[in-house]
Amino acid sequence: MTDLERIPVRSPASVAVFRRILTHGPIGRVDIARATGLSQAMITKAVTPLMAAGFVEESEFTRTENGVGRPISPLAVVRNRTYLAGIKVTADRSYGVLTDLGADPLAQVEAGHANSGPDEVLRAMNQIARELRRRSPSGRLDGIGVAVSGDVDRAAGVVRDSPLLGWRSVPLRERLQALTGTPVTVENDVRALTLTENMFGAGRDAATLAVVTIGAGIGCGLFLNGRIVQGAHGVSGEIGHLPLAPGDLVCTCGRRGCVETVASTRAIVDRVRSAAGKAALTIDDVFDLARRGDPDAVAAFAAAGEMIGAALAALVNLVGPELVIIAGESVTEYDLYADRLRATFAEHAFGAAIDCDIVLTPHTFNDWARGAAVCVIEEMAGGSL
Amino acid sequence: MTDLERIPVRSPASVAVFRRILTHGPIGRVDIARATGLSQAMITKAVTPLMAAGFVEESEFTRTENGVGRPISPLAVVRNRTYLAGIKVTADRSYGVLTDLGADPLAQVEAGHANSGPDEVLRAMNQIARELRRRSPSGRLDGIGVAVSGDVDRAAGVVRDSPLLGWRSVPLRERLQALTGTPVTVENDVRALTLTENMFGAGRDAATLAVVTIGAGIGCGLFLNGRIVQGAHGVSGEIGHLPLAPGDLVCTCGRRGCVETVASTRAIVDRVRSAAGKAALTIDDVFDLARRGDPDAVAAFAAAGEMIGAALAALVNLVGPELVIIAGESVTEYDLYADRLRATFAEHAFGAAIDCDIVLTPHTFNDWARGAAVCVIEEMAGGSL
Repeated sequence: MTDLERIPVRSPASVAVFRRILTHGPIGRVDIARATGLSQAMITKAVTPLMAAGFVEESEFTRTENGVGRPISPLAVVRNRTYLAGIKVTADRSYGVLTDLGADPLAQVEAGHANSGPDEVLRAMNQIARELRRRSPSGRLDGIGVAVSGDVDRAAGVVRDSPLLGWRSVPLRERLQALTGTPVTVENDVRALTLTENMFGAGRDAATLAVVTIGAGIGCGLFLNGRIVQGAHGVSGEIGHLPLAPGDLVCTCGRRGCVETVASTRAIVDRVRSAAGKAALTIDDVFDLARRGDPDAVAAFAAAGEMIGAALAALVNLVGPELVIIAGESVTEYDLYADRLRATFAEHAFGAAIDCDIVLTPHTFNDWARGAAVCVIEEMAGGSL
Repeated sequence: MTDLERIPVRSPASVAVFRRILTHGPIGRVDIARATGLSQAMITKAVTPLMAAGFVEESEFTRTENGVGRPISPLAVVRNRTYLAGIKVTADRSYGVLTDLGADPLAQVEAGHANSGPDEVLRAMNQIARELRRRSPSGRLDGIGVAVSGDVDRAAGVVRDSPLLGWRSVPLRERLQALTGTPVTVENDVRALTLTENMFGAGRDAATLAVVTIGAGIGCGLFLNGRIVQGAHGVSGEIGHLPLAPGDLVCTCGRRGCVETVASTRAIVDRVRSAAGKAALTIDDVFDLARRGDPDAVAAFAAAGEMIGAALAALVNLVGPELVIIAGESVTEYDLYADRLRATFAEHAFGAAIDCDIVLTPHTFNDWARGAAVCVIEEMAGGSL
């Protein structure tokens, strides 16, 4: 196995220049200077090794500004040199995408697993990696990123605790590297998605950002003061476990009154099941019931909307992001709870915090997988973009 | 009036070096290099203009390391050159301290005001500034910092909204500068206290920090990713207005279910007053009642402790600071609610977030005033330390 290639960024200024080219390229040197506040000399100093190493090139779309003056050659990342796989693991299926260095998805592959045990999931991931390597224009994968829900120690490459998968202390990087012969980066899935939104998505130009994911669990990634918030003890963004719900409701995590006891997909289904006395109802049945006006289903979504609205108000009152992106695969059914969510948010948002933009971005598992590939790009740049 | 003197810090590296000398001086160049990750050449480049401008000097405590080798001359800020006033405004009284450039308090003065209207408060602040100038060793004040609760636009020097004082859009900087002939910096009081704790207090060596102030209101300052969190719309740290309390309780802010409806000093007094049927009880009476085991008073503090514990868990689950400092003038009575606070925090803290240190630091109004002086030092260094 070869080591992960390093992008030559040797100072914070150099990181800022590469990041701007990555997220906003093709981009002229003048625009980079404007965005970063750096001098032309510093930009040249940053760009020279990036071009020498073949990660950045002058775009072919040479043009002059307003048709007059010296032609400018915008800078862009080199697309046909580096190919990455990103994999998102869920309980019964893993989703992979192939991307270039600009994080553009080029191909998608998925594979089911009979269970969520490490052996079976690693088998599926290896199968995905093999197929994506076959489809890679270079016939190579330069790195693989894996996004897993739970407590992930990225530096060690270990999944410390993933309740969804039932994993504890799984050395995922080491094991997947041994199977694939390719450098692997492992990251928490919400953090990976937040990085992607911050660099390539709706939050690309926001100075501060929260990404709230709604689905089996409710999570949150925060981008504040130029970095993603990590949590001193590895815990942050646990918006699904804010104690906003009644204390008689017990969460899957064992605590009382967590947001997820009312607002997770499972909580919604459980509530309608027990109200209707039908233990076999699925989430799709519950969506149908709510659309047809069934009072129990309508009430369950209303309660979920109120709970998420209150949680967003708590988030915004505490850290005041410029933008909140509501993301996740269940968001396609957002209309079932959006009104109550927004009303409750407005009721509890403090002062000017109410001006925080809340936008909806439905994500597929492939978007999460792309986030995992973006973590590899970050790793190539020394761990911080 | 002369302008506020500028400390010559011209790059992020230079800010980091000055900050380290300010907070950890006298400190040798080797220790600065170790703490900042900068080379000796960069440290020299940063220190030279600071020494030339007279803000930093080689300390007289020259020593050799272990008594052998070249003597080292630790660097320290120059103490007898710059004198600052910090003023904390409360509803009926303002508190002032005189400090040097190292934020050491040298003198304290306070002045009452008949009401909290801007005219009357400005009169008191001017009186405080005159007295502190008289006591300044240089006979001069180089800057005045003012800490006010509420929504403060520091860049504009305007108090946009202070419910405690009943102020809206008060151009405090301009008015106090006109009265005193001295450059003025205006800042939100919790942010000022957080800055002080982060630079000179219990949080001096914490990478991330939350300062929670408990008193008439409940506020919070956050230091994350190397900066204090500002809030995109000017709102952040409103931990007193998280919607954790029952919805039938209406807050002084007009919203329902805010933490302050149970846990503010006023909420505690109101609860005991109505239970006891004695409208004349003061907070000191309520402290006495609780200490003597009066069930209503004990229950009121227990409820407050639970509410603050749940709010701290929400804070820690979301942003995961290394350290939480509970501060404020009411904290002297902390034993009345500490047990319930810690139990409720432990119940709702998610996973490793429970390892977050919670420490108690009683603050007087003079500590808040010192925070205001630290904001002036920050302003002298270009607005960010």
